[in-house]
Amino acid sequence: MDEERTGAWWGRRAWALLSAVRERAPLVQCITNLVSMDIAANALTAAGASPAMLHCLREIPDFTPRCHAVYINVGTLSEDWLPSMRAAASAGRPWVLDPVAAAASGFRMEACLELLALRPAVVRGNASEILALATRSDSSTSFKGVDSSHDSGEALQAAKALAWSSGAVIAVSGAVDFITDGEQVLSASNGVAMMQKITATGCAVTALIAAFVGADPSDALAAAACALAIFGLAGEIGMESAKGPASLRMHLIDALYGLDEQTVTSGVKIALLP
Amino acid sequence: MDEERTGAWWGRRAWALLSAVRERAPLVQCITNLVSMDIAANALTAAGASPAMLHCLREIPDFTPRCHAVYINVGTLSEDWLPSMRAAASAGRPWVLDPVAAAASGFRMEACLELLALRPAVVRGNASEILALATRSDSSTSFKGVDSSHDSGEALQAAKALAWSSGAVIAVSGAVDFITDGEQVLSASNGVAMMQKITATGCAVTALIAAFVGADPSDALAAAACALAIFGLAGEIGMESAKGPASLRMHLIDALYGLDEQTVTSGVKIALLP
Amino acid sequence: MDEERTGAWWGRRAWALLSAVRERAPLVQCITNLVSMDIAANALTAAGASPAMLHCLREIPDFTPRCHAVYINVGTLSEDWLPSMRAAASAGRPWVLDPVAAAASGFRMEACLELLALRPAVVRGNASEILALATRSDSSTSFKGVDSSHDSGEALQAAKALAWSSGAVIAVSGAVDFITDGEQVLSASNGVAMMQKITATGCAVTALIAAFVGADPSDALAAAACALAIFGLAGEIGMESAKGPASLRMHLIDALYGLDEQTVTSGVKIALLP
Repeated sequence: MDEERTGAWWGRRAWALLSAVRERAPLVQCITNLVSMDIAANALTAAGASPAMLHCLREIPDFTPRCHAVYINVGTLSEDWLPSMRAAASAGRPWVLDPVAAAASGFRMEACLELLALRPAVVRGNASEILALATRSDSSTSFKGVDSSHDSGEALQAAKALAWSSGAVIAVSGAVDFITDGEQVLSASNGVAMMQKITATGCAVTALIAAFVGADPSDALAAAACALAIFGLAGEIGMESAKGPASLRMHLIDALYGLDEQTVTSGVKIALLP
Repeated sequence: MDEERTGAWWGRRAWALLSAVRERAPLVQCITNLVSMDIAANALTAAGASPAMLHCLREIPDFTPRCHAVYINVGTLSEDWLPSMRAAASAGRPWVLDPVAAAASGFRMEACLELLALRPAVVRGNASEILALATRSDSSTSFKGVDSSHDSGEALQAAKALAWSSGAVIAVSGAVDFITDGEQVLSASNGVAMMQKITATGCAVTALIAAFVGADPSDALAAAACALAIFGLAGEIGMESAKGPASLRMHLIDALYGLDEQTVTSGVKIALLP
Repeated sequence: MDEERTGAWWGRRAWALLSAVRERAPLVQCITNLVSMDIAANALTAAGASPAMLHCLREIPDFTPRCHAVYINVGTLSEDWLPSMRAAASAGRPWVLDPVAAAASGFRMEACLELLALRPAVVRGNASEILALATRSDSSTSFKGVDSSHDSGEALQAAKALAWSSGAVIAVSGAVDFITDGEQVLSASNGVAMMQKITATGCAVTALIAAFVGADPSDALAAAACALAIFGLAGEIGMESAKGPASLRMHLIDALYGLDEQTVTSGVKIALLP
């Protein structure tokens, strides 16, 4: 019976993972884009993790092995940061990739594919990013910037294929998030549309996935789904007080900090797709 | 009669441009300073544009031609970012320059003048920056940092001369903003003084000008004036709820997101100077 | 009698220093980490100072000598920024060091010690950072990231020794902050625990110390104590309206902007330890 993963089961699992983050305060090295550093660091801190935005290649041999997880995000990729990303991804810690705007250029797609070969535990992207990665295509004429021009459902088969080929859990975020290891597919349905109007919420939730993986590396599929659901739940609570995207951002972070057991266990919407 | 550009005409024009931004979601590449990335990206997103903070030289040939506009800001200029700025400015897209603290050093002034020669559609600066650019002077003993030590009106003749020599629309922001193509001069009188106490509001409004130019490249003079007026109007609305600069920042972004036709057409204060 | 430095005396001193910052608007060059730029710049601006985040080596000879103070923070240290830190620290202006996560790597510890030899006016760190610097140790097995794993009191003797050996005022922040020049020790007891849950409040208060030193370089011990107390006081006022770390951040900056004489003179809690 305890194997029957109902919605209530997932609520308890999400609470257990958030509690683990708060208790263990996982140290998460973030090599992330310059735009999202503030919101990613504050989201991690509010959730109970300990972010560290070190990106210097010379520090990685000393520092990265001490971390519980690594978060790599290519949003403002540059030639001088890529070697650090490679090194941190190769340091033996569980790590999570955010392939922001993967199709923006050939250089970026190549970097994403190279990082993907370094076996991230989880890759979280929007539908356009996952489709581009799965098809190794940087020439999409539909490329319209960092926001997705596809629904998450459109990328589900691509996500499964990418999970198979890469060995990573693939999370496609959207109105409904899909998370798959290539066999099982979970859906996470928390969140509000206005979160799309806050810059770098995607980056922040990927950082949160890294914290959840860092706190409990045994099940990256559950960690990714629970982090996505909890971040979305914080957005739902924040939306009750928000008057626009900037106040939503503030209330979301406050809500993430204040989440309690009752709210999480009853609010998380995760399901196993048949 | 429709050529008589009254205040009401400008209100309708500003609303038309904001609506165009919301409908077309122009992709705006931002090569901007490290301090302003968060507020610039959030202002662009709240206004309906799609920001992308890519700065890697190797990505520009693939990416920049797909953009509707480019925004370049020298606030945290460095030798390794300057080639990307040059390349993006030369990629054939309309682009907008923010010459932050142009007089801070000889290196910076030289970079600004070099970029200016690459024919931006619009240059937006404070009075001190426009005066420095127009006189090509980096030795001003009155240099006092990134804030202006002059009123916008003091820079009006310099702005006209700079517009003539560069071919760009020059916008001088201040208590009253002046926008000129060297012949016509518009004034935009929205905004509140406390916006000066939020870091990088100038950078954010220049980014917004780029979005407006990207949505309708046919009239950079109008785009610049309307973006300045609309950002200022959002500040006025935000000020009604603000208790200091940090809450003003939040309420300003919320207000920018929520602007409706009635508010814009009646609130925008643009006039053609005689 | 005027030499008797009571709590009331310190309240008046803190108000005098904050007033000096507001009147003189000291230009503070910040070579700081990528995460804290937004909050540090906004805290400086709200306090009345004029921040400038220039980090380019080529600009330092022209720019740094015009500044009232320099703030250097190694949070996102890299090999290409270190020469700028060295140059700015050597430009003859009073400067303040924030040795974020000094023990994170051998490279970082070496950089911190090298900067320390360039005679900062003040070094502000948490207990773990000051302990690591004083013992020149980057191998601490207790290293747990950028947050302190020690109480400030545990680092007091280390701070005194470091002040003696470096010639700098050393400030150890924590639930109670200790500030020492190696002989006198001040305590500053303002602040609320939730400030630890906002990313980069430590970085922001070190920037504020630089502004206070820039406004009145004659007494770095008092400047550091008063900046710490005033920032903590703003946090106490902000906490009255906060619902979590993100709203506390906003209200703290608003409060810092709005501080008046009565609030500062009665609210600052500084004492000379016997």
